[in-house]
Amino acid sequence: MAISMYQASVPVFVRMLSNLIAILEKAAAHAEAKKIEPAVLINSRLYPDMFPLSRQVQIASDTAKGGAARLAGMEPPKYEDTETTFPELIARIRKTIAYLDTFKPGQIDGSENRAVTLKVRDDTLTLDGLTFLLNRALPNLYFHVTTAYDILRHNGVEVGKKDYLGKF
Amino acid sequence: MAISMYQASVPVFVRMLSNLIAILEKAAAHAEAKKIEPAVLINSRLYPDMFPLSRQVQIASDTAKGGAARLAGMEPPKYEDTETTFPELIARIRKTIAYLDTFKPGQIDGSENRAVTLKVRDDTLTLDGLTFLLNRALPNLYFHVTTAYDILRHNGVEVGKKDYLGKF
Repeated sequence: MAISMYQASVPVFVRMLSNLIAILEKAAAHAEAKKIEPAVLINSRLYPDMFPLSRQVQIASDTAKGGAARLAGMEPPKYEDTETTFPELIARIRKTIAYLDTFKPGQIDGSENRAVTLKVRDDTLTLDGLTFLLNRALPNLYFHVTTAYDILRHNGVEVGKKDYLGKF
Repeated sequence: MAISMYQASVPVFVRMLSNLIAILEKAAAHAEAKKIEPAVLINSRLYPDMFPLSRQVQIASDTAKGGAARLAGMEPPKYEDTETTFPELIARIRKTIAYLDTFKPGQIDGSENRAVTLKVRDDTLTLDGLTFLLNRALPNLYFHVTTAYDILRHNGVEVGKKDYLGKF
């Protein structure tokens, strides 16, 4: 036995997005308890030319739905990036999870060598499925979930590593 | 064909640690160019009770060497956490990569169902190899590399997503 491409992608994406929901729920509760305007957290960024929390969450969603779709040889659905509140951001992630849940292992298993072509600015990049998953989709997803977490921690929201890793 | 446990672990760890070296090299160059005391960056943290850059790098190293060793059913080597400069942190990561390079696929392949027992504070946690790799070792590694990156970005170091993802 080895790992299947499905095992290494969809359930991992779903787990991290579920953990992200828990983190966002804690942030929303923190804002309410401390009487902080939620938009302050949602628009917070670690540096002026970095993306704010809302965009980190949207890109985490894009990375997960794009990752699964491209491995399956499909075009990912386009979501408008209009979320400006915690309930909207959480709904975006729930919608992404619902989309991921539609994938059957057979759509993704065997995609190790499938060519995945990405638009990268004005250029395209073609990777095999294995490289795309391990070296691009997963690192990207973890980057944006971690940066969302880091933005909230930097603003004093009491989340911890357990929230990021989830339950075992 | 599917993914082997080796493919999903050691080369991925090595790639991310190599990207981390490139990020740290840019940070060291930035400090020198801007006449910033390197210790300011190395001791920087995003919140008072978060770990500083040096510890993020050390834990990234621990996660990678611990990940490979535990999948192979071995004890990871213990490194003293004494690094206080960029050259020392980079050397720590290079040493970790050299250790990872000693693993042969046969030591790790087939570890999907191998029991991995971790010390978690005062308790132990036993996971199968697949869960340990996908839901613990990899998310942890990405967390600490991303947080190191976020600390440096927050301090104005000009690193970008390309440095984090590496070359394709």
